[in-house]
Amino acid sequence: MITVPTLLLDEEKCKRNIKRMVSVARDNDVAFRPHFKTHVSREIAGWFREEGVNKITVSSLRMADYFAGSGWKDILVAFPVNILEMDLIRRLSDKTDLSLLVESSETVQFLSENLKSRVRIYIKTDIGYKRTGIRYDDNLTNEKLIEQITSSDKLAFTGFLTHAGHSYGSKSFEEVTGVHNESISRMVQLKEHFIGRYPGIIISVGDTPSCSIVSDFSAVDEIRPGNFVFYDYMQILIGSCLPNQVAVAMACPVVATHPERNEVVIYGGSIHFAKDSVLNNEGEEVHGIVVTDNGNGWEHIINGAYLTKLSQEHGIVRLPGKMAHCFKPGDIIKIIPAHSCTTANLMREYFTLDGRIITRM
Amino acid sequence: MITVPTLLLDEEKCKRNIKRMVSVARDNDVAFRPHFKTHVSREIAGWFREEGVNKITVSSLRMADYFAGSGWKDILVAFPVNILEMDLIRRLSDKTDLSLLVESSETVQFLSENLKSRVRIYIKTDIGYKRTGIRYDDNLTNEKLIEQITSSDKLAFTGFLTHAGHSYGSKSFEEVTGVHNESISRMVQLKEHFIGRYPGIIISVGDTPSCSIVSDFSAVDEIRPGNFVFYDYMQILIGSCLPNQVAVAMACPVVATHPERNEVVIYGGSIHFAKDSVLNNEGEEVHGIVVTDNGNGWEHIINGAYLTKLSQEHGIVRLPGKMAHCFKPGDIIKIIPAHSCTTANLMREYFTLDGRIITRM
Repeated sequence: MITVPTLLLDEEKCKRNIKRMVSVARDNDVAFRPHFKTHVSREIAGWFREEGVNKITVSSLRMADYFAGSGWKDILVAFPVNILEMDLIRRLSDKTDLSLLVESSETVQFLSENLKSRVRIYIKTDIGYKRTGIRYDDNLTNEKLIEQITSSDKLAFTGFLTHAGHSYGSKSFEEVTGVHNESISRMVQLKEHFIGRYPGIIISVGDTPSCSIVSDFSAVDEIRPGNFVFYDYMQILIGSCLPNQVAVAMACPVVATHPERNEVVIYGGSIHFAKDSVLNNEGEEVHGIVVTDNGNGWEHIINGAYLTKLSQEHGIVRLPGKMAHCFKPGDIIKIIPAHSCTTANLMREYFTLDGRIITRM
Repeated sequence: MITVPTLLLDEEKCKRNIKRMVSVARDNDVAFRPHFKTHVSREIAGWFREEGVNKITVSSLRMADYFAGSGWKDILVAFPVNILEMDLIRRLSDKTDLSLLVESSETVQFLSENLKSRVRIYIKTDIGYKRTGIRYDDNLTNEKLIEQITSSDKLAFTGFLTHAGHSYGSKSFEEVTGVHNESISRMVQLKEHFIGRYPGIIISVGDTPSCSIVSDFSAVDEIRPGNFVFYDYMQILIGSCLPNQVAVAMACPVVATHPERNEVVIYGGSIHFAKDSVLNNEGEEVHGIVVTDNGNGWEHIINGAYLTKLSQEHGIVRLPGKMAHCFKPGDIIKIIPAHSCTTANLMREYFTLDGRIITRM
């Protein structure tokens, strides 16, 4: 029985999302290296393995260690190497087929001097997101770094990696496709510049909107989407998924009702949902959308019913029409969060519709 | 040695903050019931006990249970009662002197039918924040609820509680004082309306800005500030504290530098800091401010050096002048977070300047 804020996981929808993305990769003949930072769960990782997945992406060395502990071998840490964790890098490179991400010559030098086993190296490419990486058109800097990498017997140069994070700001099929096409053409330009001298290098891209919407990945070698395993309200709004593909929802107790202002107060705040918000179709920043309850799970999204405000432990849900009159303290209200990655990170475990608990790292 | 994002705690500053707020309460002859939701640590709770504190506030029943487990007896759960946790409420009311918060007659009825031991009841008052509670000037609704409470032999009516959460939007001494004075006059009006019939009832208020800045609490019976135990960049900007009173800072590894755009990339993202931001003096939303490193701890804030962007694991720090040239991968950068409550919640433990780990619930 649910008595406190609980993150529900619809196992069937989640497995369908995995199967579907495996097919997308297979149909495009592109390597599939899903990002596991959204679920961070060995059990859910097992559902990928059942579909034949054997390469993964993670966002920290500690996460790599967690998955290495359940038998994953081919692991890419898609985060600029933190050289302060050299001990862990050495341990991981002994027992796994480790890939690391670099963007600076200091880091490459440090790795080549301190590694014992050989690791694969991707260069982080900035194709316009400006978060981190070397610009796709900065041939000089890329060239110097590649020469430094290939001159070390500890480092195997694999290719270029980017994350088109700005696709998350998209609001339509056209916008996502536009971002994707621009990213791909820049990555292809970069690969073509270097492939003559470094045969076999690859380009790796990975964002859930592009991988969910775009059908042509012929120019790409590897995709690394992550959020698609659950999806969320942001992805519904972008158009990456339909509401019935979202595999997680929060179940929160109602603790007070204010029908006179169409609001109910829930036990469920920023320490459960995270502060992430998204601009809904009415142009309002919201933290989630309410769904209809069908017993253990949930069914339809309720347009106009939003999680509008978050305090540390409270949330305010605004309901349309007379709907606030339908709730009383002690009821449970179910909500698809704005961003499932950060909600799952805070909740720390999943509660399946048949009442099992699935743990995270 | 610090190798990953780490939350540093300056024990000495923290203890000074506790001592100072104990004095504020004592000088004003007002009951001190600090909110423990910021630190949520039995060890830090012990520092309050050393100063003679014996009443506390928490924000969930589970938090009440955690502190009851280390001997705290007089506990207020300042959150509208979640009746789905009735089993826990019964257990807590057996072993502690429990106070609960209500704002609806359904909840009062449920409690009076299901409690075994007597608990104290505060009514949640809305003095303009509109998050939750009964309006301070709605005498009819308040009266009905009080009659219902006092007619139950399981419920002892204690008084009215409010949280002037809108003081966190203040930017000056004058604004905080203005919010405080309005809140207090509304709470006093409410108390005066009912004290004739219910002698001994109290008014309880609690926000860190007011309790830090305002010197006169003569009209109030109880204060419940929480964040002051650590403070943070938001409280510096409001004027609640000086930079040298902030007792926590994040220490994050530098993983890449971009001196050409005055930025460094740190290992430390929204899963470490939380997404909370605050408008700095230049009118820009930032997630924290950089401080100078003095070995184990930190010293001055560096004006113009901000944590400007957060991805899940990355942060982007923008530095003034040529300062980005001073950092290289493997360095540690120290940052006072925008909001210490949510950062501490994500980090789950504290690292003292002499290298001890202090745990949270």
